Amino acid sequence: MSRFSPMPSPPYYAVIFSNQMGEDSSGYGAMSDLMASISADQEGYIGVESTRDTEGFGITVSYWESEEAITQWRENAKHLAAQMKGKMTWYDHYQLRVAKIERQYQGPDGR
Amino acid sequence: MSRFSPMPSPPYYAVIFSNQMGEDSSGYGAMSDLMASISADQEGYIGVESTRDTEGFGITVSYWESEEAITQWRENAKHLAAQMKGKMTWYDHYQLRVAKIERQYQGPDGR
Repeated sequence: MSRFSPMPSPPYYAVIFSNQMGEDSSGYGAMSDLMASISADQEGYIGVESTRDTEGFGITVSYWESEEAITQWRENAKHLAAQMKGKMTWYDHYQLRVAKIERQYQGPDGR
Repeated sequence: MSRFSPMPSPPYYAVIFSNQMGEDSSGYGAMSDLMASISADQEGYIGVESTRDTEGFGITVSYWESEEAITQWRENAKHLAAQMKGKMTWYDHYQLRVAKIERQYQGPDGR
């Protein structure tokens, strides 16, 4: 299965979630799997790209057709997080940015 | 040193670079260090967040004050890549998206 998200024609939207995992990751895997599942079922979902290094620093970028889809997903995600372990206490810190994709390309070219 | 980028007031810009490293990573570390160095010196640079897992899947998001800064940086980066090892042959595949940050928050709240 590809680690890359599809690239529809811009404009579309990205949620860039960078985060530092704390020491207590109990329950994180289950939450992460569930989050991926509800994302994929969400209207307007395009795809996700996610990675984390051995120091626990992770970046997840999810891609969406519209801002409305992000808003709806956020509501669902908040409910899920609330059910599972309060206010994202897995993370020492996180930053979330919503962005509009304007242009793109992929490669490598010429190989 | 923080792994997180500063968060100035939107709007500002992001370059989302997701990539799968190939088997031959010779010279990559030197290129990566040089790229970080020229980025940080570039007019309009805000910061960068970057991580890669043990399977070689990486995401680097760099943040910029304007599209002009990205264009200038891209020209410099292309020159550097050309000098070092042709057309980014370290990567099996990469996707690059330019996006405008519209809103953001950080957390966790309420801890």
